[in-house]
Amino acid sequence: MDRREPPRTEEGWYVLHDFRTVDWDAWRAAPDRERQRAIEEGIDYLTAHEAVADADAGGSATFSVLGHDADLLVLHLRPSMAHLDTAERRFEATALADFTEQTDSYLSVTEVSGYMSQDYFEGEEVEDTGMARYIESRLKPDIPDMEHVSFYPMDKRRGPEDNWYDLPFDERSDLMSGHGDIGRDYAGDVTQIITGSVGFDDYEWGVTLFADDPAQIKKLLYEMRFDPSSSRYAEFGRFRFGRRFPPEDLGALLAG
Amino acid sequence: MDRREPPRTEEGWYVLHDFRTVDWDAWRAAPDRERQRAIEEGIDYLTAHEAVADADAGGSATFSVLGHDADLLVLHLRPSMAHLDTAERRFEATALADFTEQTDSYLSVTEVSGYMSQDYFEGEEVEDTGMARYIESRLKPDIPDMEHVSFYPMDKRRGPEDNWYDLPFDERSDLMSGHGDIGRDYAGDVTQIITGSVGFDDYEWGVTLFADDPAQIKKLLYEMRFDPSSSRYAEFGRFRFGRRFPPEDLGALLAG
Amino acid sequence: MDRREPPRTEEGWYVLHDFRTVDWDAWRAAPDRERQRAIEEGIDYLTAHEAVADADAGGSATFSVLGHDADLLVLHLRPSMAHLDTAERRFEATALADFTEQTDSYLSVTEVSGYMSQDYFEGEEVEDTGMARYIESRLKPDIPDMEHVSFYPMDKRRGPEDNWYDLPFDERSDLMSGHGDIGRDYAGDVTQIITGSVGFDDYEWGVTLFADDPAQIKKLLYEMRFDPSSSRYAEFGRFRFGRRFPPEDLGALLAG
Amino acid sequence: MDRREPPRTEEGWYVLHDFRTVDWDAWRAAPDRERQRAIEEGIDYLTAHEAVADADAGGSATFSVLGHDADLLVLHLRPSMAHLDTAERRFEATALADFTEQTDSYLSVTEVSGYMSQDYFEGEEVEDTGMARYIESRLKPDIPDMEHVSFYPMDKRRGPEDNWYDLPFDERSDLMSGHGDIGRDYAGDVTQIITGSVGFDDYEWGVTLFADDPAQIKKLLYEMRFDPSSSRYAEFGRFRFGRRFPPEDLGALLAG
Amino acid sequence: MDRREPPRTEEGWYVLHDFRTVDWDAWRAAPDRERQRAIEEGIDYLTAHEAVADADAGGSATFSVLGHDADLLVLHLRPSMAHLDTAERRFEATALADFTEQTDSYLSVTEVSGYMSQDYFEGEEVEDTGMARYIESRLKPDIPDMEHVSFYPMDKRRGPEDNWYDLPFDERSDLMSGHGDIGRDYAGDVTQIITGSVGFDDYEWGVTLFADDPAQIKKLLYEMRFDPSSSRYAEFGRFRFGRRFPPEDLGALLAG
Repeated sequence: MDRREPPRTEEGWYVLHDFRTVDWDAWRAAPDRERQRAIEEGIDYLTAHEAVADADAGGSATFSVLGHDADLLVLHLRPSMAHLDTAERRFEATALADFTEQTDSYLSVTEVSGYMSQDYFEGEEVEDTGMARYIESRLKPDIPDMEHVSFYPMDKRRGPEDNWYDLPFDERSDLMSGHGDIGRDYAGDVTQIITGSVGFDDYEWGVTLFADDPAQIKKLLYEMRFDPSSSRYAEFGRFRFGRRFPPEDLGALLAG
Repeated sequence: MDRREPPRTEEGWYVLHDFRTVDWDAWRAAPDRERQRAIEEGIDYLTAHEAVADADAGGSATFSVLGHDADLLVLHLRPSMAHLDTAERRFEATALADFTEQTDSYLSVTEVSGYMSQDYFEGEEVEDTGMARYIESRLKPDIPDMEHVSFYPMDKRRGPEDNWYDLPFDERSDLMSGHGDIGRDYAGDVTQIITGSVGFDDYEWGVTLFADDPAQIKKLLYEMRFDPSSSRYAEFGRFRFGRRFPPEDLGALLAG
Repeated sequence: MDRREPPRTEEGWYVLHDFRTVDWDAWRAAPDRERQRAIEEGIDYLTAHEAVADADAGGSATFSVLGHDADLLVLHLRPSMAHLDTAERRFEATALADFTEQTDSYLSVTEVSGYMSQDYFEGEEVEDTGMARYIESRLKPDIPDMEHVSFYPMDKRRGPEDNWYDLPFDERSDLMSGHGDIGRDYAGDVTQIITGSVGFDDYEWGVTLFADDPAQIKKLLYEMRFDPSSSRYAEFGRFRFGRRFPPEDLGALLAG
Repeated sequence: MDRREPPRTEEGWYVLHDFRTVDWDAWRAAPDRERQRAIEEGIDYLTAHEAVADADAGGSATFSVLGHDADLLVLHLRPSMAHLDTAERRFEATALADFTEQTDSYLSVTEVSGYMSQDYFEGEEVEDTGMARYIESRLKPDIPDMEHVSFYPMDKRRGPEDNWYDLPFDERSDLMSGHGDIGRDYAGDVTQIITGSVGFDDYEWGVTLFADDPAQIKKLLYEMRFDPSSSRYAEFGRFRFGRRFPPEDLGALLAG
Repeated sequence: MDRREPPRTEEGWYVLHDFRTVDWDAWRAAPDRERQRAIEEGIDYLTAHEAVADADAGGSATFSVLGHDADLLVLHLRPSMAHLDTAERRFEATALADFTEQTDSYLSVTEVSGYMSQDYFEGEEVEDTGMARYIESRLKPDIPDMEHVSFYPMDKRRGPEDNWYDLPFDERSDLMSGHGDIGRDYAGDVTQIITGSVGFDDYEWGVTLFADDPAQIKKLLYEMRFDPSSSRYAEFGRFRFGRRFPPEDLGALLAG
């Protein structure tokens, strides 16, 4: 019953997944002028945030979410929690907010861990600029320009028999490496942003997947489920699925 | 602790189960003209979608749902997520939406897996046109013309002792085959549409059963529960039960 | 890991437990004339359904439910799902519905299983008319004329160690028989209606107990909990408890 | 896999824990006259019930509950379920009810069990009038005159390894006896009312603790958690904590 | 199956975590004068409580909470439950309360336990004034002046294999000591307030962490998760994350 060696981690941008439902009854009942104002202020908000007008760095994107849990997802990546806090409250100051309710959210931070890039963390001079670029791309990722998004939070299991946190470092490292191999088979088809959330939200990680073809997301996750890192050590939360849309299409989206 | 071989899968139409409750207080209080308009727009929406006027292919059907969780189920099968996204939002643009709330939903895609039809997936020339037709009927299914529907989502178990995803391929294949045998005993009485939802919704599969005699659904599922594929490896979500009705009966349905 | 033999079952009447809360704020605020109309239409609905005016056979009864989950339970037994579907929606067409909300429900069907009456199911000529009458009384039960009701749904456990569905038939039959013995000790004091709900609602069975003395229900269930069929194999859902009242007392009940 | 011997039990008064939140927005917005009427009718209701004007025997008490789950707890002990049913509905007939919502409740009955007092249950003549008085004090308890209350429901565990209901009677009796010893160490500081709820509510028991010093409740329960009857066999539900107030202080309480 | 020795504990200030959402729709719709009054009364309330005007001792602080669960956290430490009860209700008497709803809360008390400071509890004269000061600082803590806060409740596990409450005292003491070592590595970066809640709220402890750099909270908790006290014995509840703000910034915060 010894303490296991944790991987070193490095954190980058803070991330807010801001899920909102549309109050369709209010929307249908609203006079045209109010709707128009809501659309204009909504587009202004979304456009400004996608342009990262509120910070030196980061990214934002907007999605139409399928199903009853939410209608919209606004995804924000920013250098600080303060930026996210402000972005969340500024939405509430728009006329669009009159027609939405924030029903779900997830707070996390981009991370790279020492499983993947031990040399980097062991302080060796990173001459390998490929590695440096890779790490930079994980800590300060571009939001992929793909049509669909899938988001879910997850934990690593701490059961009496399958306990991720009680495995030796090398075993965890091997498992993560095998897990990563599957992801690489889908390179180009599915792009992921992995964020850590211990201490920030109810699960340990958030996973955000992007793909043009939704079936590729399903195939990737299904294949991973047969890998021991998932089959024996993963606990999944809720899944949300959406389609990206450019802010200027907000009016068309709300028109049905 | 090796990675297990996943079955290959092929995906077909995307599927939205759209569950809605009726706001009966508002319905009783509404003037006749408003009710009439809601019924007309509702019938128009449902008729157009059942006729698949919005896409080249697919199917839709409408059900009255028993119990407190929902009053209506609108089931949509379409070639793309974009079709489903639009169908869901278009409902909100009808006057009927004033009297309903979307309280539940399920997002998935029809699938066939390599457990059932390995030859097909192994690239052998499918001379067996029966097999080809079978697969087509699973990926692009007709919605059966039967009175009752039962829907539930499910996972395969990943416990420390009973772990579906840690079984060898052949064992899973045998289990699926035995499971399928039970279903075949009910051919003609119960028809099913199996959809995959990994990455799309909270469970791994959705199961939609159709039957004229509700007791046949109960008997089939009860018999399956004694089969190891269910008794040891299935985790079930909520169950919803409904009765199909033609769109033109919407007014009678809402009249009580 | 073989498939176990399921018991044969026979199904009878379909059953809806329709739980509703009273909107007491609206009730207190309503003018006398509206209240009077709600009471009259409520009594008409309940009286007609208790008289089974809507079907050739069945039964209905009304209960005041204690606690915050519900205020009323309307219990319907009918020959078809269509009858239940109509009964549920007809309630919404009454003025009483303005003051209630359907917050819970359970959908099931009366059943007898081959554990209890194997001869019957084995096609032997049932000369034993006592057995025939017993089965008839389970499939088409009279609602007992007793003051109190307790309802709960339940599953049989499918854990890695205690797995009901993985027990041999004879072992399950012995367990059910021992379980039944306890029930028989309470004959006259507690009467039960057992209904199956696989495919219809979230649990596998619904149990509805009737007694004049509430303590007898508690004693019966507590005694059963020490029987292995419960101690090792039962998973219980929520419990609801109520007191029967005749429809004509509805006004007094709502007066506080 | 034999049936275990249940303890015999005797039941006394039925108990309703009636938890309500205050609608503070409505309260602040209400005209003085309405508030005054709500306070008066609230005090009348609480005073009459604490005086048990509605029954031959029993007791009632009122508490301010901390935290978001509830603001008020009205605790009723009465000889019959009918008394509780009436008490619950009569609250809804007061003007105070306009400003509260019943958000939680618990329904149970006082009990003594054969673990504690086997002689009594074995029909031996109870010459020991101390024992008779003890049992009477458990079945028809006075509500202790102490400042704080803690309420929680609980089950005994039925896991594959730790299964209370599968232990021999003597082992359970020893465990209960050891458990009781801890309670006795806190005599005078913490007083408890134990109620059974199998068949009445979602857990098997309700525990209501009273103390002037809240830390004594914490110390008692923490100490018990190291006793096997809790550490291996208890499953706890939600915890609610409140402070008693006399009905005449209702106005001051609502004033903030 | 013997009773294990509990650690002795000493309790200090009672603690209420009062989480509230802002009703943004009402806020946007309110006339300036009402908003101004809400801000003024809100600032008065927060300022007075941060100055502990209502008690002889204690502390309060206010935070903006990220995500959908809450918008504000008001944290109160006070010498008695009565103080917390009053503080909670006084908030409801402010005009700010018109624009907030209490959606979550946690009730607990500061504690030190005999694992950490056995000598102190064993009645040895505490000449070590360092120890005395340390204990005082845990029972009557200053709220750290740091930008971010993370709150979560937790239990120690009582599973059949990993059962904290069934470990010998010395083993628990060693585990707590190792656990504490990790915390000490983050001294200066992360400060914690540990509170006990057995009998007061749904979990056994509340953990409130303070840091200027949010990543330090994540790193600390992630490292602890590999320590057996967490990896094998901890069960975590929900996580909430916020940013401190001075009461006078309330208006700016609500402005978006």
